[in-house]
Amino acid sequence: MTQRPQLELQNEKFARNIVGARGDKGINAYLGIVVSEMDAVRCVASFDVTDELVTPIGNMHGGCLSVLVDHVLGVIMYPVMPPGYWAATTEFKINLLAPVDRGTCTATAEVISMSRRLAIVRVDVENEGRLVAVAQGTCTIVAPKGAS
Amino acid sequence: MTQRPQLELQNEKFARNIVGARGDKGINAYLGIVVSEMDAVRCVASFDVTDELVTPIGNMHGGCLSVLVDHVLGVIMYPVMPPGYWAATTEFKINLLAPVDRGTCTATAEVISMSRRLAIVRVDVENEGRLVAVAQGTCTIVAPKGAS
Amino acid sequence: MTQRPQLELQNEKFARNIVGARGDKGINAYLGIVVSEMDAVRCVASFDVTDELVTPIGNMHGGCLSVLVDHVLGVIMYPVMPPGYWAATTEFKINLLAPVDRGTCTATAEVISMSRRLAIVRVDVENEGRLVAVAQGTCTIVAPKGAS
Amino acid sequence: MTQRPQLELQNEKFARNIVGARGDKGINAYLGIVVSEMDAVRCVASFDVTDELVTPIGNMHGGCLSVLVDHVLGVIMYPVMPPGYWAATTEFKINLLAPVDRGTCTATAEVISMSRRLAIVRVDVENEGRLVAVAQGTCTIVAPKGAS
Repeated sequence: MTQRPQLELQNEKFARNIVGARGDKGINAYLGIVVSEMDAVRCVASFDVTDELVTPIGNMHGGCLSVLVDHVLGVIMYPVMPPGYWAATTEFKINLLAPVDRGTCTATAEVISMSRRLAIVRVDVENEGRLVAVAQGTCTIVAPKGAS
Repeated sequence: MTQRPQLELQNEKFARNIVGARGDKGINAYLGIVVSEMDAVRCVASFDVTDELVTPIGNMHGGCLSVLVDHVLGVIMYPVMPPGYWAATTEFKINLLAPVDRGTCTATAEVISMSRRLAIVRVDVENEGRLVAVAQGTCTIVAPKGAS
Repeated sequence: MTQRPQLELQNEKFARNIVGARGDKGINAYLGIVVSEMDAVRCVASFDVTDELVTPIGNMHGGCLSVLVDHVLGVIMYPVMPPGYWAATTEFKINLLAPVDRGTCTATAEVISMSRRLAIVRVDVENEGRLVAVAQGTCTIVAPKGAS
Repeated sequence: MTQRPQLELQNEKFARNIVGARGDKGINAYLGIVVSEMDAVRCVASFDVTDELVTPIGNMHGGCLSVLVDHVLGVIMYPVMPPGYWAATTEFKINLLAPVDRGTCTATAEVISMSRRLAIVRVDVENEGRLVAVAQGTCTIVAPKGAS
């Protein structure tokens, strides 16, 4: 809504390598999360709602959406930090807006604020043309030893 | 970032009356919070950082920003609900980004999602051209007795 | 810390059936989440950190902890609601405190507040004797049609 | 619910000086917030719901409760940090549970987790024997220059 930080791409290799890659193991691989866009402004990632993900009650477990949110929070800072820096999800808050039972879930994340130690990120998650979750989270940034 | 709900103005009188009004008592009056814009899309409210608000340490108490956030959450739903409906802040999460010691604090709020029972609102707070807080909150909507 | 609501067990069958059961499909089955305790006061659920869950970087994806939190939020209200009522996770906030790479993750959840429409739940997640995540969330309660 | 960090009192003077003191100016002084207990385990602070705080609608503005939460988050870390360290509220999430129109609002806060850089705090706010708000927040800890 208001001005956003002017972030520069500092690790283009990270951004280039992650786009289109799918994990071999872990919960992101189970969901099939793939990052489709990544630059200094935003990160877009998605997964398909397969039959496996729909519980006997008929809806996808809401936890799948928080995994997607945590995943984009975990990768979004790397392109805008120099190589060697490390970032981790410290906390986030998610509102779940509607049940999901088909289609693709796509998260679009944006860095709202970034200081030397912390970054704030907002995430929208869409499914079948509707907003199904929104989140706001904090990433902790850690410089490599010896960096000023 | 993504599509927003199509909300219709249902209580123009509320919106017209609140713009420019300043409370007589209570914490919003103490801060001098005034709503400057209000329609079906967004609500803008602000207060000036007077000497009274700056503590001996030299900064404004961060709590002033959460009052501003709570205030816009408390009014933003009324223009988009029929007269007689009631809305209240159920919860919110706020990130405080930078200290404040002068100027004006301005919150810009947007309804991100609205169902019959709940609405989700995002808020940006600016001061001196910088983002100083961001929030995401939930309002509970209560229909008058007898409304379907 | 302070007084907690006096909740009565209203659906003992739900509590009895869920304890020890493991899902057939969906993300909770993937993680192997099992509820081990469930009464009107609290819900305890856990999963083992298998090799599959540890990513190539050497840690478990933080999203696994938010699935566990979402899962206990999704079941904890059923024993204290009459049969026919429905509850859903509306939102939660999670702080991730420490990386996880082995052992068992156990969530202990407690209903802090419950009204006719909403309940507030706090969750602690432990691993290897340490607290690794804490959360606070809101469940929406929906009465069956015709219930007063 | 589970184990809590073993924190040692490192700045007894801070704790001793703040108990019973009332601010001269700023929003905490407006509300009349006074810290009544402060040690390495918890912080208790309260204010009275005066006529001034009750709005024409008949309830206290919910923002008063978030000021109280922000206030305890802002002071709770000082007794458990060596003199010279600095702590600030980075973010918090608050659930508002019930309207308030009289009596005293008392926040009881507890440090749930503390690392070198961050601490997590939970807060319960009571009024007239009921829980009226619960919060979970993060404080950033900054060591003085030269501290290891």
